[in-house]
Amino acid sequence: MTVPTIGVTSGDPGGIGPEILVKTLFRAGDLPAAEYVVFADPGVIAAEERRLGLRLAAHPWSPDSQGRPGVFLSPVPAPPGATAKGAVSAVNGEASFRAFEAAVASARAGRIGAVVTAPVSKAAWLLAGHPFRGHTEYLDGLYPGAIMAFWSKPLKVALFSHHRPLREAVEAVRAGALFDFLRTLGRRLEKLPGGPFRLLLAGLNPHAGEDGHLGGEEEAEIRPAVERAASEGIPVSGPFPPDTVFLKALGKDDAVVVALYHDQGLIAFKLTAFASGVNVTLGLPFVRTSPDHGTAFDIAGKGVADARSMEEAVRLAAAFSATGS
Amino acid sequence: MTVPTIGVTSGDPGGIGPEILVKTLFRAGDLPAAEYVVFADPGVIAAEERRLGLRLAAHPWSPDSQGRPGVFLSPVPAPPGATAKGAVSAVNGEASFRAFEAAVASARAGRIGAVVTAPVSKAAWLLAGHPFRGHTEYLDGLYPGAIMAFWSKPLKVALFSHHRPLREAVEAVRAGALFDFLRTLGRRLEKLPGGPFRLLLAGLNPHAGEDGHLGGEEEAEIRPAVERAASEGIPVSGPFPPDTVFLKALGKDDAVVVALYHDQGLIAFKLTAFASGVNVTLGLPFVRTSPDHGTAFDIAGKGVADARSMEEAVRLAAAFSATGS
Repeated sequence: MTVPTIGVTSGDPGGIGPEILVKTLFRAGDLPAAEYVVFADPGVIAAEERRLGLRLAAHPWSPDSQGRPGVFLSPVPAPPGATAKGAVSAVNGEASFRAFEAAVASARAGRIGAVVTAPVSKAAWLLAGHPFRGHTEYLDGLYPGAIMAFWSKPLKVALFSHHRPLREAVEAVRAGALFDFLRTLGRRLEKLPGGPFRLLLAGLNPHAGEDGHLGGEEEAEIRPAVERAASEGIPVSGPFPPDTVFLKALGKDDAVVVALYHDQGLIAFKLTAFASGVNVTLGLPFVRTSPDHGTAFDIAGKGVADARSMEEAVRLAAAFSATGS
Repeated sequence: MTVPTIGVTSGDPGGIGPEILVKTLFRAGDLPAAEYVVFADPGVIAAEERRLGLRLAAHPWSPDSQGRPGVFLSPVPAPPGATAKGAVSAVNGEASFRAFEAAVASARAGRIGAVVTAPVSKAAWLLAGHPFRGHTEYLDGLYPGAIMAFWSKPLKVALFSHHRPLREAVEAVRAGALFDFLRTLGRRLEKLPGGPFRLLLAGLNPHAGEDGHLGGEEEAEIRPAVERAASEGIPVSGPFPPDTVFLKALGKDDAVVVALYHDQGLIAFKLTAFASGVNVTLGLPFVRTSPDHGTAFDIAGKGVADARSMEEAVRLAAAFSATGS
């Protein structure tokens, strides 16, 4: 039996990334059967195993071993000193960037089918000379049109725009771009297990503009995009009032809300997903998931980090990989 | 003992307003002791009592009787035919407007201390020649600066702006207007029981602008307003990232989130308050509360309407009236 091969990066060595990685993969026997490949500095992982008293017993990984269930290590040497906990540093930024880059390179080469990324620090990446806001923006550079989405049991959300000022996000709501987005998202979701999915599109204005009385974008930009997408077979409906569309989707496994701007989607997601939310990048030739929290420098090294979101990220990567998408 | 006097309007006779009124006040013995005065057409209430098989046994109210616990009726004759269920009509709009206007007039004259309003139809008001979006906008005309807020056990939210296009709501975020709002809100909350309250102000942009990288309003407009308000003793902090400020406030009885636009506040409120949310208008010389749902024409007359939000609106009006604020 061949199982999916899933890369898991360490994240920033100064944050909780290595801890939640070790906690999650230590119980690999309870996870979906997969070849789990840790992309990390061996010293960082060994130190974390000692600190937690948990042994991963990872085997050396070679791309030829593809398809054996278990936990493996693909060593990505960090600069010296890259284990200091609790603070932003250039060496930790460099270490986490190298681990991520190595995992992405393996995915692009087809050696692994999914990448699960532990949290990195944008500030540390910047100190190390890698000026990306995060994983998604790095991937967006390689694959323009990568889609930031959030997955949990109660709610699934895809963001039409994410890290931009609200004023610009409002300007970006144009029929052409929205149609392109809906088509890309719809096609990507077709390939994912758990579907078929329905897209519920949020409006931009209160009450979805109320027939133009509370804003013109719904009529001028949003409806034309929805109609065109629907005519091409994309299962999208809306625009719905933003303050009730999430209630409409809540608990429906096949519903994905399309949010038009960052906080429209994330206010709802963070209030409903709690510790089990997963960040997913769609529109790539491989699967990429991540816990939906940050490095948590304040609790790093204390052994108290909650690994549930990381575990869900691994489970979702395995589920999405199972179809070979 | 003198108890507070609380007016309760019927709402649109074609919607669920009369039903949730009768269901709530039928159990007046379980509500806080108050003089509950129904402002409605006697025929509308009598028909609802028959339909539900519940008798309010309301006594005629005269303003001189102030302070006796029980349920009373202040008749507000409706135009003929104002009981048809399930549809928008001019007569029903006129009936609900008259009931609301009579209750407000009594409150302005000091005869009642609070007004609880059952849902009305904006479309029916328009047909009847009363072009207000709703209760809040009518009150805003009488008392400029009235504040739309939402109250529930898990979360309390006040809206800096509400029914305007998102584009305009973004433009409206100015230091001067925001300071005025925070001061008005702070002073109003000082008088309410359940405090002292803390104001948690949401930012406008993702991550509250991230030091200007994701939008300039936080630094140019919002921080100056917060600093000025804080220097005048208003207990306000922020701006906080919009997608986590609600989690910060959730379950904290003394926290009120200030949302900068309609959906920022209402996405969070509707996902957390469920059936018990109450709409509150602050900044008036009397208390005004309302259930946070609409007329629900689709289920009107069937006896299945959920009266919890109405009951919570009545309880909150009683609690807020108890201090004479």
